[in-house]
Amino acid sequence: MGFTVSSADMEAIALGGAFLGTGGGGDPYIGKLMAQAALDAHGPVTVTDVAEVPDDAVCVPVCMMGAPTVMVEKLPNGEEAAAALSALEAYLGTKVDYLICIEAGGLNSTIPFAVAAATGLPLLDGDGMGRAFPELQMVSFTLHDIKASPMALADDKGNTSILNAISNQWTERLARAQTVEMGGAALVALYPMTGAQAKQGLLRGTLGLIRELGESIAAERQANRHPGDALIRRCGGMQLCTARVVDIERHTTGGFARGRAVLKGLDEDQGRSFTLDFQNEFLCLEDGEGKPMALTPDLICALDADGGLPVTTEKLHYGLGLRLIGLPANPQWRSAGGLDLVGPGYFGYSHAFAPLETLNPANTNT
Amino acid sequence: MGFTVSSADMEAIALGGAFLGTGGGGDPYIGKLMAQAALDAHGPVTVTDVAEVPDDAVCVPVCMMGAPTVMVEKLPNGEEAAAALSALEAYLGTKVDYLICIEAGGLNSTIPFAVAAATGLPLLDGDGMGRAFPELQMVSFTLHDIKASPMALADDKGNTSILNAISNQWTERLARAQTVEMGGAALVALYPMTGAQAKQGLLRGTLGLIRELGESIAAERQANRHPGDALIRRCGGMQLCTARVVDIERHTTGGFARGRAVLKGLDEDQGRSFTLDFQNEFLCLEDGEGKPMALTPDLICALDADGGLPVTTEKLHYGLGLRLIGLPANPQWRSAGGLDLVGPGYFGYSHAFAPLETLNPANTNT
Repeated sequence: MGFTVSSADMEAIALGGAFLGTGGGGDPYIGKLMAQAALDAHGPVTVTDVAEVPDDAVCVPVCMMGAPTVMVEKLPNGEEAAAALSALEAYLGTKVDYLICIEAGGLNSTIPFAVAAATGLPLLDGDGMGRAFPELQMVSFTLHDIKASPMALADDKGNTSILNAISNQWTERLARAQTVEMGGAALVALYPMTGAQAKQGLLRGTLGLIRELGESIAAERQANRHPGDALIRRCGGMQLCTARVVDIERHTTGGFARGRAVLKGLDEDQGRSFTLDFQNEFLCLEDGEGKPMALTPDLICALDADGGLPVTTEKLHYGLGLRLIGLPANPQWRSAGGLDLVGPGYFGYSHAFAPLETLNPANTNT
Repeated sequence: MGFTVSSADMEAIALGGAFLGTGGGGDPYIGKLMAQAALDAHGPVTVTDVAEVPDDAVCVPVCMMGAPTVMVEKLPNGEEAAAALSALEAYLGTKVDYLICIEAGGLNSTIPFAVAAATGLPLLDGDGMGRAFPELQMVSFTLHDIKASPMALADDKGNTSILNAISNQWTERLARAQTVEMGGAALVALYPMTGAQAKQGLLRGTLGLIRELGESIAAERQANRHPGDALIRRCGGMQLCTARVVDIERHTTGGFARGRAVLKGLDEDQGRSFTLDFQNEFLCLEDGEGKPMALTPDLICALDADGGLPVTTEKLHYGLGLRLIGLPANPQWRSAGGLDLVGPGYFGYSHAFAPLETLNPANTNT
């Protein structure tokens, strides 16, 4: 069962995507404007349930690759995504039938709507992460043996390339080097798959969920309530802490926005301190003693403690109050194969993964 | 008027290529072995005069891209060049009719023979530089508006990619980043051109000249004479100095082998000192007072002062005696457009280009 998305829905989709984006995926405001412009010009987009897709259909995710810090300064001109898609179509020698949203996240859950509007193609309801992750092999598609290659990249200057790598990890390495040289961000089309593969690999329902979460954030704010409690109820998550940023260190290297924020507790967390690590996305929250409170792949979602809007890593700044919410990752990510791909060890943390329910037994699910 | 090259000719071709390679293009010994193995297995290669090529023929240079320091440690496995060529053919949707040697240089004037033998394709007699240069846009093809893109890259692991860049400079940038990520070296096929374009763009006769110079080096060594004088006579060049390496600084960065050697004069140059700069190739020779004696694009060719064999930059070491010979660059390189592409300014030297005949008026052409 699908649905239709028009320009007016993009407000909610950008908000919900930014919440599930765990700090990554870029500025939702920019993504919203891009998608709204395309939807206003070309009309609404159809979101299709993958169950209704023919097995031999050609389905392709389109997204932005690079550091969100770069994306804030270097907006896509709107041609790159179309260029990446046509480069891939020309290489495959076939037209694409359905677009896919690769992750939940500010820009990357809105750009596919802009491309879908401009091309007239439907979008599948689902994504490859159920959240955002920093590297391109970190998708459920990899767990289902779907190849990232051939992959097309396009930049703002008119350069394009096609990669054909031996593994999804190699596709990431080669594409990342290309993205850096292209100026830190590129629009890409990758993981071309059949409808049958999409039925296997897609994490279903993500776009519908994103819209619902975004509508909930808007409604709670309208009612002068902080949206945190409603989101925790809807997603089966938990409150991690309320705290203020007192130090932030960041660097954009190797095509990623990396860094660490030191937080001081507020309200019921008065007197406590926390550190929050990120590589494009929030990956690890520790308390003042270095004990982990939430670890990738579980979701660490940040809301502004006052206004309740989602906060992305590049917007972190001294003095900002955050309400951090933990959500359990999709069960695929908590499997052995999933943890190999996106667990704490992959990112260099010495903590073994433990579910956030185990790490925080006292936190009741409000 | 073409000729045929068999395994026995590769000795001379590797030597002559290394001499004209001005220190670059990688170890001629490795290139020779690769080409000989292919020629022994598949039989001799035809070298064709470009005048005899149909205007609509498809002609493609194949070469190794990367730092020669890397190539010494990481030999091509023989599959990469074929993989790059097939990737380009598949992308173009057409078969290649003729191969081209992109530059004179140890590996890059022998690898095309290996590929020609394995594929059964003829090679054109000529190249794109008349010497070696470090970056891929530095070819006569660029001066004749022939595009480097589409370009195919292949590495030793089985990864391939196709670049489609907006300029030959952008092809260089994107391909260099890719090459670095592929481990520092890749086999590439680029500048696909018609026979008509090859007739315009090719610097003709380079392969015949390389073979002749190599035969001359071998014959002089056989006769216990240093080959320097014969090479100077044949190429209209001049003796620059005879000197010993007393200091060498090098680093492999950004996909290039860069560095500087300090030399102390020997024999008639006793008491003088020199500095020799390189980025894959020798680019600038200065005397002890910093006065330029030879500047890119003129050729700075190094021979071992004792044995007379060509010396590549990665073989420079403390105590090595060198005889440096200057050759005038092809007139295209001394034009305004040529100097923009490969003159001292491009490489960051403050010296304005001056022909080596002007810089060294006292040096008689022996």
